[in-house]
Amino acid sequence: MRFKITCLFALLIVWCNNSYAQTPKIVYQDASKFHLYGKAFHTPQPYHRVDTARYSDLPIAVKRLLTHSAGLAVVFKTNSKTISAKWCVTNSKALNNLTPIAQKGLDLYIKKDGKWQFAGVGRPTDICSEFTLVKAMDNAEKECMLFLPLYDELKSLAIGIDEGSNIVALANPFKKRIVIYGSSIVHGASAGRPGMAYPAILSRNTGLYFMNIGISGNAKMEKAAAKMISDIEADAFVLDCVPNPSPKQIKERTEDFVKTIRANHTKAPIILIQSIFREQGNFDLDVRERVSQQNEEITAAFNRLRNAGVKDLYLITSEKLLGDDHDASTDGIHPNDLGFYRMAEGLAPQLTQIFNQYQIK
Amino acid sequence: MRFKITCLFALLIVWCNNSYAQTPKIVYQDASKFHLYGKAFHTPQPYHRVDTARYSDLPIAVKRLLTHSAGLAVVFKTNSKTISAKWCVTNSKALNNLTPIAQKGLDLYIKKDGKWQFAGVGRPTDICSEFTLVKAMDNAEKECMLFLPLYDELKSLAIGIDEGSNIVALANPFKKRIVIYGSSIVHGASAGRPGMAYPAILSRNTGLYFMNIGISGNAKMEKAAAKMISDIEADAFVLDCVPNPSPKQIKERTEDFVKTIRANHTKAPIILIQSIFREQGNFDLDVRERVSQQNEEITAAFNRLRNAGVKDLYLITSEKLLGDDHDASTDGIHPNDLGFYRMAEGLAPQLTQIFNQYQIK
Repeated sequence: MRFKITCLFALLIVWCNNSYAQTPKIVYQDASKFHLYGKAFHTPQPYHRVDTARYSDLPIAVKRLLTHSAGLAVVFKTNSKTISAKWCVTNSKALNNLTPIAQKGLDLYIKKDGKWQFAGVGRPTDICSEFTLVKAMDNAEKECMLFLPLYDELKSLAIGIDEGSNIVALANPFKKRIVIYGSSIVHGASAGRPGMAYPAILSRNTGLYFMNIGISGNAKMEKAAAKMISDIEADAFVLDCVPNPSPKQIKERTEDFVKTIRANHTKAPIILIQSIFREQGNFDLDVRERVSQQNEEITAAFNRLRNAGVKDLYLITSEKLLGDDHDASTDGIHPNDLGFYRMAEGLAPQLTQIFNQYQIK
Repeated sequence: MRFKITCLFALLIVWCNNSYAQTPKIVYQDASKFHLYGKAFHTPQPYHRVDTARYSDLPIAVKRLLTHSAGLAVVFKTNSKTISAKWCVTNSKALNNLTPIAQKGLDLYIKKDGKWQFAGVGRPTDICSEFTLVKAMDNAEKECMLFLPLYDELKSLAIGIDEGSNIVALANPFKKRIVIYGSSIVHGASAGRPGMAYPAILSRNTGLYFMNIGISGNAKMEKAAAKMISDIEADAFVLDCVPNPSPKQIKERTEDFVKTIRANHTKAPIILIQSIFREQGNFDLDVRERVSQQNEEITAAFNRLRNAGVKDLYLITSEKLLGDDHDASTDGIHPNDLGFYRMAEGLAPQLTQIFNQYQIK
């Protein structure tokens, strides 16, 4: 009997050693030392989008939403076969139109044959989570881009690699700097994972550096927001901010908003985008009418600005951005991944055609 | 002062009356009296898919998952301008790769110009929720289809309409009966809302009656499952059950599974579908190898069955089902709405070509 137990122990030790050999220890490094794609400003807390202490007149909700890491991604290079992460967010409530992966999770892309390709996600399990994003890779050197939570404040992030492998900083792989200011749709609702927000798809598809200033339920072209946007060092400004302000607010605020940006950026193209169709409006006549009025007002404001001599200003209309089968939303308000894919496919050629005229490429 | 207060009261009454006139009271009716699309069996609890008491040998997890209302939809007709719902689910935990709307919520479609079109969602707010799915419609008579929660047991459901409007039963609008047996992907992960699970898209696009027997993490072709599937009165059987069983299980179980169905359904076409590519396998060599082996084994089993003289058996290969940009999953395992859209687009012509030979149309 004792002999049998000894044998079992011996087997267990052999098995443990083998397992250990197959799965090396994971060692973690703080992610904030790597390049953070998508940042519009330097901020004291690295994963905030804006240091809102500098813009005290912004609405409180806007300030809070600008602490979300929407549109940010850590870029690095590693030859590790495994990539893990440890990260902490807040205890904010789950949103009913987002997956927890999109709201509080991570989304890893790796470059393959010159293209950024999906590799794995970090599933949030608590306020602080640890998760293996991808494993069992070959040990070639890989360029990695880790998209951060869309709808929460990221408190800390560490990237884990196999002990003995290396991880090094990767220079910013994107060119130029383009602001996208907008609503929850820019912010990323309702992408299934962080990398599917449409500004992120645009970056991967065009190689350009998009800065996500999506502010869910807001982006109403307030004066303080105009000041903040105009302070961003950028080559172009995309304003997808029609969905939330009322038609009256669009009428009253668009010209000031555009002129405030133009005052700081005399030659940068400014591109207005009409609101996408809200799929609630398939049957809700009030919603349909509101979106129609919003788009009329942004078009009228665009025409007034052009007539007043504002140059380098463009308007992209929204008829086809979500397709025509009406299946491209999660909740009748926000695009699903099909919708974001279609938006990126629809916007990329129109935006790059404009950008090309300004050598933004 | 007293005069002013009286005036305020009078104004308040006028305002309340006006509000009341604009938003009539909602009256509720139990939904179980209407036709339930997607049912494979009669069940004592109307929103269960299978009465698992009849199949005591099924694994416990399978029994529990078959109480989920995945793929079921209530069909009715109403001229109400508002459609609301009150419903109760369980206290099951939120899944990290699904939106709460998909897991525990509702998804309304209405027929327009002969096509089913998205109308609105029911957002779950608690174990029991009440939500306005759509409002401000015209008062024409409308055919409605309300998809039920994908990943929870629906305990009760009442449909609300404006007082004074009518709601009547609608006959089953779909033709024939087709079983889809499969994994979490059939079950509906990771659709953004219940109507985006691919069997539901297939029904809307083809007009055929698909019965969702998706069993998340399972569908491993157990003997008891073969018995259950073979008991379903159906015109065709689609088996998308390669993702979860091991290559060895596929080798050992496929022939028995197909033959058990064939024994009860001598002429019904049986269509095997290879596993979709798991996007984790972009870089995880183990995942890629496993899926490749699973698909080799299902192909080998298909060939053995055909060589053994089993007729009316088909195999659909999976190369293109998710597209080739690798962006069509939520978590590397489950399609997002882009993936489900592509799966339905890819499968519909292949399935209808087979079905046409059997007058299933």
